[in-house]
Amino acid sequence: MNARLPLDMPLTEGLHTSPTRDVDVQRLSPSGVSTEHDLVAAEVPVALVFNGISHAVMMATPADLEDFALGFALSEGLLASRDECRGIEVVEVAEGIEVQLDVASAAAARLQEQRRSLAGRTGCGLCGIDSLARLDLTPEPVTPPAWAAQLAPATLLRAFAQLPARQPLNALTGAHHAAAWATPEGELAAVMEDVGRHNALDKLLGQRARQKLSNADGFVIMSSRASYELVRKCARLGVPMLATISAPTSLAVDIARQAGMQLYGFCRGTQVVRYGP
Amino acid sequence: MNARLPLDMPLTEGLHTSPTRDVDVQRLSPSGVSTEHDLVAAEVPVALVFNGISHAVMMATPADLEDFALGFALSEGLLASRDECRGIEVVEVAEGIEVQLDVASAAAARLQEQRRSLAGRTGCGLCGIDSLARLDLTPEPVTPPAWAAQLAPATLLRAFAQLPARQPLNALTGAHHAAAWATPEGELAAVMEDVGRHNALDKLLGQRARQKLSNADGFVIMSSRASYELVRKCARLGVPMLATISAPTSLAVDIARQAGMQLYGFCRGTQVVRYGP
Repeated sequence: MNARLPLDMPLTEGLHTSPTRDVDVQRLSPSGVSTEHDLVAAEVPVALVFNGISHAVMMATPADLEDFALGFALSEGLLASRDECRGIEVVEVAEGIEVQLDVASAAAARLQEQRRSLAGRTGCGLCGIDSLARLDLTPEPVTPPAWAAQLAPATLLRAFAQLPARQPLNALTGAHHAAAWATPEGELAAVMEDVGRHNALDKLLGQRARQKLSNADGFVIMSSRASYELVRKCARLGVPMLATISAPTSLAVDIARQAGMQLYGFCRGTQVVRYGP
Repeated sequence: MNARLPLDMPLTEGLHTSPTRDVDVQRLSPSGVSTEHDLVAAEVPVALVFNGISHAVMMATPADLEDFALGFALSEGLLASRDECRGIEVVEVAEGIEVQLDVASAAAARLQEQRRSLAGRTGCGLCGIDSLARLDLTPEPVTPPAWAAQLAPATLLRAFAQLPARQPLNALTGAHHAAAWATPEGELAAVMEDVGRHNALDKLLGQRARQKLSNADGFVIMSSRASYELVRKCARLGVPMLATISAPTSLAVDIARQAGMQLYGFCRGTQVVRYGP
């Protein structure tokens, strides 16, 4: 994709496929005011459409959207397996981007049933959840492999040391999060960026699913804090370990411990902090 | 509220009212492994219930929830004015916290109508929006006062310089965002913290609404990036200016320019960057 579009391209012109946008800005400093060009992170409405029925709209970075759609569908439990997805097409429309998934009839029936059970309700904040009674925070259990229990902090820090050079969008904008897959030896195998941390993770997990890679032998590192939904998404897809640069929340710790997932935070400098299990 | 709860208090014990949680962690460094106590940010499911009907569940920091509920209801357009809210009660339940709003019958009817028009649909990512056709990103226009157009960068930076000392939760956890109200002279009048940046803003705007303060004469500063929903929320409540420590997204810039709202980013050191209008 083209990393630059014409200056101040309005959203309504239907060009939603660059991950950055070039805007005129004014820099104000003690030495005065200067007009400059600046690259900002594109934030584009992306609709996920299953067999012709729109299910959700997320604000996302318009790149790697096939991976994003499959990762979201799997990590939110909308699809039971990668094989339920028969095809994915990215279509630009006036208001944003539609990602159209062709899914197995069993999956479509489940989605339809879910919509019916939520009839007359709106969801907000949590995916399709409008009351506490509908909340289910119990994670799928994961089985940490032997290497995870004995991982040296130096291995974790080696993975994080490689991350900045693998964040080209964030280098341009300062506004993108990254999710990366690391081998048990701490080598980065893949990195995804997005304005939303959960989107970056979905892109990473979706790419692995499309490539039919197992999540049992490696771990995820992220440039963000760890909130509950990141741990939940990893648990659902069998990721045994999540490590973040910044702090976890209480619910992230609770869910990681319930799932038996290794959770690390504050992976900086020469130290890491283990929060679970 | 008590800032500390017993170690590793499970979520299911029904004590959701501390903004932090004390957990046992292991710090791994070149000199070995040490077990320590650490404070993490509590992330608690908060349901917003209007006249007995649950409308949304948000993950939030359990503090200032009356302000949060009123701010969310106003900034998302669920209530047309503060006067439509007759009372707010915070009730702890097994699964989290319910904030019960007693609203005018006209507001309840509008909410009911909104639910009916969304019958059979689930929302995700965006509040109750499941397809691009339902997306309306056109902001309410704001009228920047004369002082906003001539604000000196030193005034903005003076406001940001006061922020760290006014973030007690973030000092404990490293995981809380802050939204603050600044006077045209750059003095901080109020600060709210939350694990979610949009929640911190809703708490700030809700507090101002409860205190019947006008939003025309001052501005909001935030410890985060500026994404579209922050600009949208500010525009809806007539805030003439938003300034953030980190970068804005493209949609934040677009919406600020459409609204005629002053938008500043990268307010650090001796410089600020103006992105709009």
